[in-house]
Amino acid sequence: MMYERCVAYLDQRGVTLDDIADCVLFLQQRYHPELTLAQCRNVVEEVLHKREVQYALLTGIGIDVAVENHRFLDPQLEMIVQADAPLYGIDEVLAYGICNLYGSIALTNYGYIDKCKPGIIEKLNRDHAVNCHTFLDDIIGAVAASAAGKIAHNYEK
Amino acid sequence: MMYERCVAYLDQRGVTLDDIADCVLFLQQRYHPELTLAQCRNVVEEVLHKREVQYALLTGIGIDVAVENHRFLDPQLEMIVQADAPLYGIDEVLAYGICNLYGSIALTNYGYIDKCKPGIIEKLNRDHAVNCHTFLDDIIGAVAASAAGKIAHNYEK
Amino acid sequence: MMYERCVAYLDQRGVTLDDIADCVLFLQQRYHPELTLAQCRNVVEEVLHKREVQYALLTGIGIDVAVENHRFLDPQLEMIVQADAPLYGIDEVLAYGICNLYGSIALTNYGYIDKCKPGIIEKLNRDHAVNCHTFLDDIIGAVAASAAGKIAHNYEK
Amino acid sequence: MMYERCVAYLDQRGVTLDDIADCVLFLQQRYHPELTLAQCRNVVEEVLHKREVQYALLTGIGIDVAVENHRFLDPQLEMIVQADAPLYGIDEVLAYGICNLYGSIALTNYGYIDKCKPGIIEKLNRDHAVNCHTFLDDIIGAVAASAAGKIAHNYEK
Repeated sequence: MMYERCVAYLDQRGVTLDDIADCVLFLQQRYHPELTLAQCRNVVEEVLHKREVQYALLTGIGIDVAVENHRFLDPQLEMIVQADAPLYGIDEVLAYGICNLYGSIALTNYGYIDKCKPGIIEKLNRDHAVNCHTFLDDIIGAVAASAAGKIAHNYEK
Repeated sequence: MMYERCVAYLDQRGVTLDDIADCVLFLQQRYHPELTLAQCRNVVEEVLHKREVQYALLTGIGIDVAVENHRFLDPQLEMIVQADAPLYGIDEVLAYGICNLYGSIALTNYGYIDKCKPGIIEKLNRDHAVNCHTFLDDIIGAVAASAAGKIAHNYEK
Repeated sequence: MMYERCVAYLDQRGVTLDDIADCVLFLQQRYHPELTLAQCRNVVEEVLHKREVQYALLTGIGIDVAVENHRFLDPQLEMIVQADAPLYGIDEVLAYGICNLYGSIALTNYGYIDKCKPGIIEKLNRDHAVNCHTFLDDIIGAVAASAAGKIAHNYEK
Repeated sequence: MMYERCVAYLDQRGVTLDDIADCVLFLQQRYHPELTLAQCRNVVEEVLHKREVQYALLTGIGIDVAVENHRFLDPQLEMIVQADAPLYGIDEVLAYGICNLYGSIALTNYGYIDKCKPGIIEKLNRDHAVNCHTFLDDIIGAVAASAAGKIAHNYEK
């Protein structure tokens, strides 16, 4: 049930599971050329079934929405979050809370995807003027990086 | 200026710098019996001058207040945060974002203080029925643990 | 197979699975009074089957043994590790690498156990004069804390 | 003195401060085109003066050298470390122990540099057949990423 609500919130904020699966493919295709989008989506679904991931995702979207509605503590903090100020960093802290659960490979993949901003991550990032996706883009990057870590571990076995 | 706003928000939420300094004393007195409350408060002030700490503190209080005002995404998430559900864990993720900046000693001290709940941390924790301090108590624990780590490092030099 | 070698190395360094299970009981008994040592040992075994945990454990014991044999880089580093110098901290970094995989509850439990030093952890710590257990005691604390985190999550479900 | 020994060990393992400064430039030049190699080297020196960084560096080199000399616990672990097996991950755990001290920007930069492997990092990586640099390349990446994080913070002020 919690899982369904996460997927619904993602959809409401403009993100599909295939968007996230695309990011996983971006990260893992060079190591496993035969990997399909459907396989990536399956692993994304597994990651999104983990309780801590769901809590991080909902909390991050909660902050983004509160900032959009000008109801997050005070105007100065709202401005900092809305602008995704380079030193703000709390969105990355939440993202690391997800990646840590999936080990070192997830963490390095997150750092890489956060710089390269493939697909949906770049799209959310461009959207900054109107909406606030400061937390969402990092959380999606973290979910994709975690799924990539899981795939790397599965191949090894 | 950011520093002053952090201190003002702490005050508004019922926390003084001496409350935090008391927690530092609780952590460090057994190693350094001559340590004074005034010295501890000085180090707490230093920690609160760090930009990332300020952002974590304001974001945490921002979530607590949004939950109190029933304006944080949806009623189910609000209930989970308000109750400080044992598996929620995002408050600890934010706290670790602070402690990590101060190294291993800060991290172990945080784990310890989070279990022992001395002084203000216990007080905030008891207050759960009316107010929401789910994030604040962990952030105060993290600031105190970071200050304790800083003191341990200073003594070594 | 890797699992069997980890258990054999633990045994060789004076640690049984029941010693670790005792630490888990120490951490979780107040929340779940009906918990048995056998249940704790089962979860310890599960944690020790995780590949990253095995690598951290073997690497930590590898450093301890190299220091005992005076074959770890140079005498000054060996002395610092042997003495478990309070600011050394790399043993804790390895321990956090384990706990992070099991979420926030594991991390706070680790900080707590690292201060309280129940059972085998205190025993290894006392042994410092002759042997080097600088990494082993933290790794055992991390395995116990991770098992405690797993138990907490299982009860919730 | 500890600092001088770290620089001497780096030199002995084939790494100069300018090699690390080059990695910093690689990471920061796109944001600050006027940044010079000399400025980057200054910040690298600052990072290498931090006690925890020195301990991580010496411990990492200590493991690399012990593996080269076939004196690290047992042949199977030595083989895994020597091959830098994709799931080994303990080298990254040590690297994160460094980056965490410098905040979110350092962490994402580390993930990026670990994938792109500029300059000295690629060179150390190619060297795997004869020497073991499994820990060193990650530690250098972490030092460079931390220096990059420090530069980003300094520019903001």
